[in-house]
Amino acid sequence: MTIHEVAARAGVSPATVSRFLRGQSVRSPEAIRAAVDELGYWPSAAAQSLKSGRTHTIGVVVPDITNPYFAAVVKGMESVTRTENYRILLANSDESSEREDHVLADMARRVDGVILAPATERDQTPLKLRDSKVPLVFIDRDLMEGDEFDAVLVDNVDGARQAVEHLLGLGHTRIAAINGPPDTTPGRRRREGFLAALTARGVGIAPEHDLIGDFRESSGYQLTLSLLSLPEPPTAIFTANNLMTLGALKALHDMRVDVPGRISLIGFDDLDTGPLLRPPLTVIDRPMVEQGVLAMRLLLRRLDPQYVDDIPRRIVLGVKLIDRASTAPPKGQHVPPPRARKARPA
Amino acid sequence: MTIHEVAARAGVSPATVSRFLRGQSVRSPEAIRAAVDELGYWPSAAAQSLKSGRTHTIGVVVPDITNPYFAAVVKGMESVTRTENYRILLANSDESSEREDHVLADMARRVDGVILAPATERDQTPLKLRDSKVPLVFIDRDLMEGDEFDAVLVDNVDGARQAVEHLLGLGHTRIAAINGPPDTTPGRRRREGFLAALTARGVGIAPEHDLIGDFRESSGYQLTLSLLSLPEPPTAIFTANNLMTLGALKALHDMRVDVPGRISLIGFDDLDTGPLLRPPLTVIDRPMVEQGVLAMRLLLRRLDPQYVDDIPRRIVLGVKLIDRASTAPPKGQHVPPPRARKARPA
Repeated sequence: MTIHEVAARAGVSPATVSRFLRGQSVRSPEAIRAAVDELGYWPSAAAQSLKSGRTHTIGVVVPDITNPYFAAVVKGMESVTRTENYRILLANSDESSEREDHVLADMARRVDGVILAPATERDQTPLKLRDSKVPLVFIDRDLMEGDEFDAVLVDNVDGARQAVEHLLGLGHTRIAAINGPPDTTPGRRRREGFLAALTARGVGIAPEHDLIGDFRESSGYQLTLSLLSLPEPPTAIFTANNLMTLGALKALHDMRVDVPGRISLIGFDDLDTGPLLRPPLTVIDRPMVEQGVLAMRLLLRRLDPQYVDDIPRRIVLGVKLIDRASTAPPKGQHVPPPRARKARPA
Repeated sequence: MTIHEVAARAGVSPATVSRFLRGQSVRSPEAIRAAVDELGYWPSAAAQSLKSGRTHTIGVVVPDITNPYFAAVVKGMESVTRTENYRILLANSDESSEREDHVLADMARRVDGVILAPATERDQTPLKLRDSKVPLVFIDRDLMEGDEFDAVLVDNVDGARQAVEHLLGLGHTRIAAINGPPDTTPGRRRREGFLAALTARGVGIAPEHDLIGDFRESSGYQLTLSLLSLPEPPTAIFTANNLMTLGALKALHDMRVDVPGRISLIGFDDLDTGPLLRPPLTVIDRPMVEQGVLAMRLLLRRLDPQYVDDIPRRIVLGVKLIDRASTAPPKGQHVPPPRARKARPA
């Protein structure tokens, strides 16, 4: 269906139909109206976008939509877009900066703004978006020097601290961490919080207990196997995201390690199935849907000419520990009493 | 950045820039080229779409992106779009026909095609899409009479049959089903398969054991509580999707019912956490990512003029039972021996 067919039906020129559709006065509006109705002609969104300079579409880029955390964040975003007459162009970066680059360059020409949960902190692509004047809001990325972007984060350092305090309170001193990539804000900051909390309490960490994963389930699985193969395995493991927690739990099940009898497990981010797992997981929980809602509200606000040059906003949401059943006092025979261990600052 | 800024920089009219960008000959192309490069002006996707009549965007509408099944399906779709230079406009219908209607009418003007996992079978919106000549592929909807759409489904009847055969094989005769809405293909067909398999083996089902949920976790929870409150509760429950299975398991935990000691549970659709649950879930599994891949391939094929009028394709994928630990022979004292029960066709 094109404007030419409508014009032919109405017996006028395409230019006249175009003027009619733009609300301008034309000679025979009734005939054109009838032709539009009969043919069911809608001016295409592309034509309307071209006129308004707005697409009413928001690009959303997340590392992995099958991670339940990101699915919940996107659901929160959509609860805002649906009432504000925007829509969401969704892409996964698969935790790859290269893929993210490609997606953002493509989106820059199709959307009014972008919400990005970046693959790494080092990424230069946001600067490209800035050059294109496409507003951007970060999920889970700290403001970097020179940044001009809004961001919604959670208190990663405090979450890791809560996990460590919980384990220390149970009597653990040999605590391992399966961290995320150090070039991501959650990877870097959760590890900082973990090490700082141990140091603050004078508890050391063996280098072989301070591991770096990639936030995928498989790395949680593999790194847990490597911890179990150590001469002195830890009595507790802190995993820095939900998928690595599942990987760790699978490895512990496969190796028939009693949780929490032999090893305690605490993870960052809750899961819908958290209470139903064997054992029910003790986790650091954050407001996931709310993070998406706030990010979308920040972005839509930024699209208002009144706020376009406003200073960047950074919203940091609190997190809280949910104490279920995957952590308990240490029972392994390798554990010396806490006072016998020499603290070694990390 | 607009065409007006480029024109001012190049010292020509906006109309001249526009002609240049359309590849038409103009008087001073070098000056315009330089202005475009210096200002980093990209013709908007909207302008390009208007020219080509294509948006290279596919609309995807699912009932709930936080359902891990749909997240996996969308991931499968994206694995195709990324290599084919398409992108995905995503929307949730929240299992609401009204919301779905609204979303599809909006999408029809912005996308080259739509993949829809519909809220109900009765929906008339697809006909609207057909009138707009927007190709459509269904996920999880049977071909209805007069349909002209491609579809990718799984064998719902066979999946329910496998679940029933498994429970009968363990010795259960008092089996309840928490079905999905009867106006959806998975809701209707899984119930048909369930009832047919019982009837084929001469086993009856009490009306109060044949329940209808809404595919959400809360209905799995509530309906399980109602089953537990019956004078003669079932010894086994079949739940027709993943979220209702989780709801059922939560209710059984909350009521401290031993699974599978007191009640066996088998659900349609596996979960990533399925093996880690208490107890590990016995499920009917289907190829989720593959369903998304095939749906997107069908749609992109339909965009090829060569296939635009091809007869509708209907792909039905097989499903298989994964036998974990949530089902076992019945032990409850209410269970009479099978031969003592009179079969009652459903």
